[in-house]
Amino acid sequence: MKYGFSQRVRYLKSSAVRDILKVVNKGDVISFAGGLPDEKLFPVEAVQDAFSKAIGSGNKALQYGETEGVFDLREQLAERMAVKGIRRKPDNILVTSGSQQAIDLFARVMFNPGDIVLTENPTYLAALQVFESYEVKVVGVDSDDDGMIEEDLEDKIARLKPKCIYVVPTFSNPGGKVWSLDRRKKLLDLARKYHVVIFEDDPYGDIQFDQSSTPPPIASMDDNKFVLYTSTFSKTVVPAMRIGWIVGPHQIIRLMAQAKQASDLHTNSISQHALVHLLNDFDLDGHIQTIRNTYLERMHIMKGLLDGVKNEELTYITPKGGMFFWVNMPKQINTTDLLEVAVEEGVAFVPGTPFYVSDPQQNTMRLNFTNASPDLIRDGMERLVKVINQHEYETVMV
Amino acid sequence: MKYGFSQRVRYLKSSAVRDILKVVNKGDVISFAGGLPDEKLFPVEAVQDAFSKAIGSGNKALQYGETEGVFDLREQLAERMAVKGIRRKPDNILVTSGSQQAIDLFARVMFNPGDIVLTENPTYLAALQVFESYEVKVVGVDSDDDGMIEEDLEDKIARLKPKCIYVVPTFSNPGGKVWSLDRRKKLLDLARKYHVVIFEDDPYGDIQFDQSSTPPPIASMDDNKFVLYTSTFSKTVVPAMRIGWIVGPHQIIRLMAQAKQASDLHTNSISQHALVHLLNDFDLDGHIQTIRNTYLERMHIMKGLLDGVKNEELTYITPKGGMFFWVNMPKQINTTDLLEVAVEEGVAFVPGTPFYVSDPQQNTMRLNFTNASPDLIRDGMERLVKVINQHEYETVMV
Repeated sequence: MKYGFSQRVRYLKSSAVRDILKVVNKGDVISFAGGLPDEKLFPVEAVQDAFSKAIGSGNKALQYGETEGVFDLREQLAERMAVKGIRRKPDNILVTSGSQQAIDLFARVMFNPGDIVLTENPTYLAALQVFESYEVKVVGVDSDDDGMIEEDLEDKIARLKPKCIYVVPTFSNPGGKVWSLDRRKKLLDLARKYHVVIFEDDPYGDIQFDQSSTPPPIASMDDNKFVLYTSTFSKTVVPAMRIGWIVGPHQIIRLMAQAKQASDLHTNSISQHALVHLLNDFDLDGHIQTIRNTYLERMHIMKGLLDGVKNEELTYITPKGGMFFWVNMPKQINTTDLLEVAVEEGVAFVPGTPFYVSDPQQNTMRLNFTNASPDLIRDGMERLVKVINQHEYETVMV
Repeated sequence: MKYGFSQRVRYLKSSAVRDILKVVNKGDVISFAGGLPDEKLFPVEAVQDAFSKAIGSGNKALQYGETEGVFDLREQLAERMAVKGIRRKPDNILVTSGSQQAIDLFARVMFNPGDIVLTENPTYLAALQVFESYEVKVVGVDSDDDGMIEEDLEDKIARLKPKCIYVVPTFSNPGGKVWSLDRRKKLLDLARKYHVVIFEDDPYGDIQFDQSSTPPPIASMDDNKFVLYTSTFSKTVVPAMRIGWIVGPHQIIRLMAQAKQASDLHTNSISQHALVHLLNDFDLDGHIQTIRNTYLERMHIMKGLLDGVKNEELTYITPKGGMFFWVNMPKQINTTDLLEVAVEEGVAFVPGTPFYVSDPQQNTMRLNFTNASPDLIRDGMERLVKVINQHEYETVMV
C-alpha cells in the first residue's frame, strides 16, 4: 500500500553520524566518530544506589508524574545553575527527555514554516535536523575562533528578522571552540536590541579543561527575557537516563510544557528521582573533575598524534573542553572519500560536511577523543595519520 | 518582551483532566478523576530487582542506545503480541516514551494541517490534543455500544477521505466499551476498501475481566498493511518507566523512528533493559491477573453504589475491563457545574465534555474505579450520590 505522509517527512533525515555509527560499530574499527562519553567512567555504583533509593522511596514515585518534572530535581537544577551565575526559579525549568527534546519542544512552540534561525556554520547536526523538520530556514552567520562576528550577525538579524539565534558557545559541537566573553555580550546586546530569542545549548559546559578560561554562560547575563538555556546529564552521569532540562522565560517554558504533555506526558520519573538521590549523595562535581582529567589526557594524546601529520595545511583548534577536535585538512582532501579508505584501514571519524548549514567545507572532519582509551587513540590515530599521508600522496600523484 | 510563537500553539491545550488533577490532589478530596492505576499494586520488588540487574549488566547498557529501542525488548514485545495474534517482527516495532509518544510521532509523520482523522465521539482526550496540535480536523463517527456504526463510517470515509481512523476498541477511554468482533472486521474491511490507515490504541487490553468476551485486536486480523497498534506497560507495570511501543508497516515505523531521533534520540534505555529483565524473571501475566481481580472487585463496588442513585435516566455500560465507568446523568444535569459542588463535598470526577470531538453531552462523566481502595470508593461514591441526588432536586426546584 502507498501511504500518504506529512510534508514534513521530506525534511526528516536520519543523522549522518548515527548512520556512520551503525557501520562502524561492526568489527575491528576504532571509532572517533560518535559523540559518546567513555562508559568506563560511568559512576555505576552511584547510579545503582540512586535508582535503588528512588524505587524504594515509595510507590508514589512510580506513579504518573508532573509534566514539568519532579519538583525536587528542578530545585537542585536551580541550585546547580546558580553556581554558574544563572539564577532562575524551579518554575522556569522544564525537565526534558535529554536536551534533544528541549530543542524539539522549543522548535514546536516557536516556529512556523519559513521562519528563520541563525546559527554558526558549521553547527550541531541534530539541531539542524530538528529545525529542518519544522520547515525552518537555517542561515549561517560568519564566525571566527571567538564566536559569531558582530557585523555579519547584526546585518543578518536586521535583514532576515530571525525568530531565534541558536548557539553552542562553550566547546561547540563540532567546532570545539569557546566564545569569548566579549562576543557573548555582543550577541546578547543584539538580541535585546532587535528582540530576538537566543537558544543557548550547553551540553559540554561542565567538561572544561581550564576553568579560568571559560567565560560564563550567556544565560547568566540575561534577566530571563531573551535566553533559553539547555543542558543535560548525558555527558556527566549516564546518557541512558535521558535527563536534560531547559530554563527560560516562563511564557515559553509554560507552552513547551503543554507541548511536552501532548508529546510524552512527562519524563521518566524513576530516573528523575534517582538523579535527586544521586545529586544528594554522590560527589558529582568530584566525578566531573575525574572526567575532565581523563579527557584532557586523551585530548593531549590525540593532539600529539595529529601533529604527526607532516602538512602545514592541516589545522585545528586545541580544545579547551568538550569532546571533539575539528580538523581542517589540506584543501584537496575530501573527507567523505577519505572515510571509506579509513574504515578499510580500521579507523573512523565524521566528515565535516553534514554539520554545515551552507557552503560545506569538504576538507573538514570531527574527531572524538573521549570514547576511546589512550591505547586505542594511539592505534587509531596511527592508522588515520597513515591514511591521510597516503591519501594526500595519491591525490597529488593524480 | 512579546514572543512570537508558532501557529500551532493556538491548538495546544492543557489537558482538562490534568488541570482537574492539580486541584483535586490537594486536601481531603476522594478522586475518581485520574486515569491512574493503583500504586499499591505496583510490583516494586520486581521493578527494584530488574533495575538493579539492568544497571549492573555492564556499562554499555548505560550508554547512548538505538533510536528503535533495545533489540531484546523488541523481541519480547513481538512474542507477547504474538500471543494476542499480532505476529510482527522486531524490525516493525518502535519503542516509545509511553504510548502517548507513539500517537505524537505517528501524527508527526502523517498529518498536514487540514487533514482529517475519524474517531469515536467521545474519545481519548490526549489523542485529540495531539491531533489538534498538528492542525488536523477530527471528525466523530456515530457509534453504539458495539463500536462505530458501519453506515456512518463508510459515508464519512467516502466523503471526507480521512488519512486515519483512530480507535480505542478495547475498554475505550472514556466510554469503557468493547467493540464486537463484527464491528472490528467491518472497520478493517472499510480501511482496506478505501486505503485508510487504522491507529489502534490499546493501553487497557490486558485489564480484562472476562477473557472470553474480549475479541482479538484489530491488528491481529491485518497483515501489517493497514493497522498501527500501540500499547504500554504503564497500566501493568509502572507508569514512571514511560515505556510504550508501536508496531505497524515498516515504511511508517521507519519514518517514525527518524522523527523520534530528532525528538529525543531514544527512549530511556535503563528502563528498557530493566523491562527485559522483568519480563524474563517476573510472572507479569500472574501479576496482571492480580490487577484484574482487584479492579473487578472495585468495579463491582462502584457499580453497586451507582445503582443507589434513584433515577432511571442515569445509565452506564458495565465495564468488561479497563479503568472507567462512563455515566450518562439525567439530561438536566451539567456535570461541569456538578463538579464544583462535588469537590466541595470532597469527591471528584471528570466531566465528559472535553472528550467530545463535537456535540458534547454535558450530562456525562467519567469515573475511575482503579486508583482508590474499596473503602475510599465507598466513601467517595456516598458523597457523589448525595451530591447527585441533591443537585438534581435543586435543579428540578429551580
